[in-house]
Amino acid sequence: MPELRQDPLTGIWVMISPERKKRPQYLDLSRKFNLKPDICPFCERNEYMTPPEIYAVRKDNSEANKTGWKLRVVPNKYPALSAKEELNKIEDQIYNKMNGVGAHEVIIESDSHDTGIDEMEVEQIKQIFVSYKRRILGLKRDKRFKYIQVFKNHGIEAGSSIHHPHSQIIALPVIPSKVMDRLSNTENYFKLHNRCLFCDILDYERSYNKRVLFKNRDFIVFASYAPKFPFELIICPIKHISSYERTPDKNFMSLAEILKQTMKKIGKVLDNPAYNLLLHNSPFIKNCEPYFHWYVELIPIVSGTGGFELATNCYINPIPPEESIQILEK
Amino acid sequence: MPELRQDPLTGIWVMISPERKKRPQYLDLSRKFNLKPDICPFCERNEYMTPPEIYAVRKDNSEANKTGWKLRVVPNKYPALSAKEELNKIEDQIYNKMNGVGAHEVIIESDSHDTGIDEMEVEQIKQIFVSYKRRILGLKRDKRFKYIQVFKNHGIEAGSSIHHPHSQIIALPVIPSKVMDRLSNTENYFKLHNRCLFCDILDYERSYNKRVLFKNRDFIVFASYAPKFPFELIICPIKHISSYERTPDKNFMSLAEILKQTMKKIGKVLDNPAYNLLLHNSPFIKNCEPYFHWYVELIPIVSGTGGFELATNCYINPIPPEESIQILEK
Repeated sequence: MPELRQDPLTGIWVMISPERKKRPQYLDLSRKFNLKPDICPFCERNEYMTPPEIYAVRKDNSEANKTGWKLRVVPNKYPALSAKEELNKIEDQIYNKMNGVGAHEVIIESDSHDTGIDEMEVEQIKQIFVSYKRRILGLKRDKRFKYIQVFKNHGIEAGSSIHHPHSQIIALPVIPSKVMDRLSNTENYFKLHNRCLFCDILDYERSYNKRVLFKNRDFIVFASYAPKFPFELIICPIKHISSYERTPDKNFMSLAEILKQTMKKIGKVLDNPAYNLLLHNSPFIKNCEPYFHWYVELIPIVSGTGGFELATNCYINPIPPEESIQILEK
Repeated sequence: MPELRQDPLTGIWVMISPERKKRPQYLDLSRKFNLKPDICPFCERNEYMTPPEIYAVRKDNSEANKTGWKLRVVPNKYPALSAKEELNKIEDQIYNKMNGVGAHEVIIESDSHDTGIDEMEVEQIKQIFVSYKRRILGLKRDKRFKYIQVFKNHGIEAGSSIHHPHSQIIALPVIPSKVMDRLSNTENYFKLHNRCLFCDILDYERSYNKRVLFKNRDFIVFASYAPKFPFELIICPIKHISSYERTPDKNFMSLAEILKQTMKKIGKVLDNPAYNLLLHNSPFIKNCEPYFHWYVELIPIVSGTGGFELATNCYINPIPPEESIQILEK
């Protein structure tokens, strides 16, 4: 059973997850690997290589865990956390830990091994966003979970170990420190101004307009005022909404459209970089509805970090966001 | 002039540093480079390639910025921050920024292009630690600076762009969020218990003994209870001391000894990995003397991070620290 341990100096939670050691490429210091399509565990006909599916978009009459799917959600074969035991919080001498209760799932985004989001059908991208919602709603029923992180690592430099397009979901019994920071900053702002900080940022960015890349009916893409990385972008609903899982399915069509448009642009200008896509959703606590606003963060990997960022959580970004947008708009 | 911008959602400070774009390998997506010794800007006879030195350990009668040195400290040629202007805090509509006042220096640790810390003379390693102290004392006189981060990136995977052994120093006009977290956690503990949290951790780890790797007269090396990465180690003074720069020079001899011993072990067991070495020092604020305890964090790069860590500041570590120590002790 994995463990969740808290560092007393920083408050950071660490999952000690020995299961993850079993991954084929683990501790390959060169981080080189080459999963050829014929052994890709996420390709059609290789369904037997993953644990049984939890959710799928399938052709009529196709059987679970057989061919005939367009999207599958399966438990991670090497999970960081496990839902097997009851949550057990333990005082460990001067330290604080709990057993690693949680869930770790993989969304296999398409049956095509090589199709990036920039090339997918918009309907397929929409299905990815719908699957996030379905799984968040499913996992949220487990009252042990306090936060769910949806994320996508694309490319080796972004931390991906499998080439076939996929996202991941991790459900946690704690609220991570970075989510707590966002929560308390937006709560403080709300207490002072009785307004959502994120809505105010959106209003300002729309009128300022120098950091906005794309807009459509429901969503906007912009570079934040203080991006950690060059070309880092935020994609978010224009109308205030706290929880991703309460977004109407129909809105995921315009989210899919704007993401495809953004990925096409990023791919063209930055030569198909590796990237991380992060869903910053509201944690499962009461009363944050008026001040938390969900959003997606897109980080193309064009430069690395080092010890300075690890030590301080400060970032050095050589390209101002206004310039990033100018470069992308060319 | 660079800028320091604060992200209103997370509170994170970002340096927007266009100077950094001029680095030769910047935006080289493959991050491959090969600085051969004959063009290494940190090698002897290439002193003209760096800005003039601020501090050096030199043979008697050798001239500044000429050959004959054992260690040099120079301003970073592509600095993230600059000390040229007065500090100017600016309300930027709904945002918060200041001009990028600070310092960014490089410690060229040795005249040898290829000698790692595991192979250096202990006296030379001691001189590196003494140079950190001298530069912190020098920079601390500038009242605009609130925190100084000393760090070393060794190897490409650790974020290093130059092979020749070097460390970096960045002086900041703000206290980074991660340093603030450490400060408030140790302050809260002190208020409750009237004891240094770090001293209590040390006492516990010394009696528990399953996470301790090495000890000598003044220093101890151990794996923390909740390490973010496999084989992550803490090296710290056994006796309570808040500020690195108040450490007596003679103690840096035992620090050099234990670091060399540790790097030899890491190099042998993990096949000379890339690594980050981070000095967690006390920020320049009053009254933290009784509860802040400086320490060095050593992170060998044997696995990567991805979107999950970026999004949450939670970490997934497949190897428990007790097992890391067992593997290193073999």
